[in-house]
Amino acid sequence: MLKEMILEKQKQAAEILHEKDIDMWLTFVRETGNIKDPMMDMLVGTGATWHSAFIITKDGDTTAIIGSLEEPNMKDVGTFKNIISYLKSVKEDLLKVIKEINPNKIAINFSRNSSLADGMTHGCYLELMEILNGTEYKDCLVSSEEIVAALRGRKSDSEIIKMKKAIKETLAIFDQVTGYLKPGVSEKDVADFVKNIVNEKGFELAWDEEHCPAVFSGPDTAGAHAGPTERKVERGHVINMDFGVKVDGYCADLQRTWYVLKDGETEVPAEVMKGFNVIKDSIQMAADAIKPGKQAFEIDKIARDHITSNGYPEYPHGLGHQVGRVAHDGGALLAPEWDRYGNLPYMKLEENQVFTIEPRLPIEGYGIATIEEEVVITKDGCEYISEPQKEIYIIK
Amino acid sequence: MLKEMILEKQKQAAEILHEKDIDMWLTFVRETGNIKDPMMDMLVGTGATWHSAFIITKDGDTTAIIGSLEEPNMKDVGTFKNIISYLKSVKEDLLKVIKEINPNKIAINFSRNSSLADGMTHGCYLELMEILNGTEYKDCLVSSEEIVAALRGRKSDSEIIKMKKAIKETLAIFDQVTGYLKPGVSEKDVADFVKNIVNEKGFELAWDEEHCPAVFSGPDTAGAHAGPTERKVERGHVINMDFGVKVDGYCADLQRTWYVLKDGETEVPAEVMKGFNVIKDSIQMAADAIKPGKQAFEIDKIARDHITSNGYPEYPHGLGHQVGRVAHDGGALLAPEWDRYGNLPYMKLEENQVFTIEPRLPIEGYGIATIEEEVVITKDGCEYISEPQKEIYIIK
Repeated sequence: MLKEMILEKQKQAAEILHEKDIDMWLTFVRETGNIKDPMMDMLVGTGATWHSAFIITKDGDTTAIIGSLEEPNMKDVGTFKNIISYLKSVKEDLLKVIKEINPNKIAINFSRNSSLADGMTHGCYLELMEILNGTEYKDCLVSSEEIVAALRGRKSDSEIIKMKKAIKETLAIFDQVTGYLKPGVSEKDVADFVKNIVNEKGFELAWDEEHCPAVFSGPDTAGAHAGPTERKVERGHVINMDFGVKVDGYCADLQRTWYVLKDGETEVPAEVMKGFNVIKDSIQMAADAIKPGKQAFEIDKIARDHITSNGYPEYPHGLGHQVGRVAHDGGALLAPEWDRYGNLPYMKLEENQVFTIEPRLPIEGYGIATIEEEVVITKDGCEYISEPQKEIYIIK
Repeated sequence: MLKEMILEKQKQAAEILHEKDIDMWLTFVRETGNIKDPMMDMLVGTGATWHSAFIITKDGDTTAIIGSLEEPNMKDVGTFKNIISYLKSVKEDLLKVIKEINPNKIAINFSRNSSLADGMTHGCYLELMEILNGTEYKDCLVSSEEIVAALRGRKSDSEIIKMKKAIKETLAIFDQVTGYLKPGVSEKDVADFVKNIVNEKGFELAWDEEHCPAVFSGPDTAGAHAGPTERKVERGHVINMDFGVKVDGYCADLQRTWYVLKDGETEVPAEVMKGFNVIKDSIQMAADAIKPGKQAFEIDKIARDHITSNGYPEYPHGLGHQVGRVAHDGGALLAPEWDRYGNLPYMKLEENQVFTIEPRLPIEGYGIATIEEEVVITKDGCEYISEPQKEIYIIK
């Protein structure tokens, strides 16, 4: 199963190499037990201790050059056609393989823009440069970022099915949270409640346990990128939760918003309703604009402008990211044109990419309103693959 | 507890910076959820999404420069004195902090030799170079490898206590395996038996589940760096297992060897005894030679020569590595002078480093004999912190 998934992706990689006219893709790593290239799981399916080279050519040939002690394991894993093992130095075998392929370009695993394509450490880069020193191949190196963006971004039908399953299971757990929330429970209580369900069901969390789920209650909460605290849910709080499970190797990433009625209140206050609706509408406006060929930042701008034109501050992050085998997947990012995002906001949207849409805004005195949905890009638009939150959830 | 451990290590880091006359140590990372610098757990205690700088000076001042969304979390974690958050680009704040420190040298997280000191991806390196472009600080960058080697290598008393506990628990599980082994059980059965005990006791495995424990039975087994297979234990097999648990954040890494008597056999055959004893003696000879100031390769050579002079092939790996928060810890490596080990075999041994000693040899027709012990280096020698295996374990 794992092996089949990897062979499918290797085949897709060869097609992408053809499309981009790159003869060879080299993933160069070492000691993946200490620091693991994010592409190893998708392309290799096991780790490597000594300097190792995993090569895919545009003809679909695959070669692993690894330390000799790891040869039996690599054969067992069975994801590479040619396995070459060395005892003392990777240099000779790697040069031999490159000379045989004699590539026009070699994509290697580094990128300014995309951390998923940036699995080569600088120390490994220096090692590789020394190996290639004095050869013509030193001048034909390019970043693997375009390949990685396409390979991770363009989901196959079977991948979409798995992602929908992860979303369905995640939304079911959100429903259970609605039953659990009440004044007096802490953010940590909610997180523990969720983690227990995840454990019972045998799922994995979609990202690190410290922040999954992230639970934020009330006006004084962190709002994002922080772990749950001892802060207690109170009447009059807007609560939001950011959470996803990983099922069959694919992640969901969703957010939902609740309001806890004050004593005597029978409906949600107007300012909370307004904040919630501005978020909801900004998601729909962004989704309406998504289609292949658009630049990612254009989509971010639509939601951002809608929020600021309604008098709220702009959200201090991008509107959405791709999702897949990891919570933050792919290349193109629905993000503003800020330095910290590199070239990712300028990349063009492609069919079969899965994006989150997750704007946020503060409702003064109440908390943070935020919804996160997931969409898949179609030939001429996009479709929700999460059942969108239409109304704020009310806790009585 | 976690926070205290980190503050203790930051303090030790400042002392090492003093000793090495390096004013500032910069750990520069991004998207640690996708690829995590191996020093993050020891120095920071949480992750980072956008380009982030974690700075320790030789005066013991600590500064984190992080994306604004992560400021509340960083404050909560509480491991850095100064927290600076940015919205659009890390550049301005990072340059400002560096100018204030005005360092003679800046150690950064890359290394040709040590993967634990090589947490900066090449893409992040390029980003950092652009930030420092046109400043004098670009010329004062050095690798953090010496600092990392000292910081991870020199164990405090409290670290040694934790490591002894992990070893004790690991050896207790080895004892249970002796009771479980019999003809007909597969390598995978043994691994499952071990993992169940680990789960029941609430420990973690010391390295990746795929290879921990590694179980090898008989003459046709992989012998190392491979996962357990369906291969069944048979009479006349030499069996070895490589395994360790992580307790309170510290790893053990040990190996033991068994022999399964053939029908009618009452004692271990002479050739198996010889192989086992050559391994046992080579460990003792290496341990006798270990002391501060020796170069690591000198120790490897003693065991290697003893094995080859007894007519066995040399083991295709180093004699031993350091252990600690990760199974492969520290800098100096008891390894031969092979390219693939970089400068690690040439580093000098220091007091309070913990090393494995783990030679191996094949016993033709029976399997692989290997024992792995752990020693801590003292002022003028070393001491076992694992109870050494003196006799081959016999399965009747």
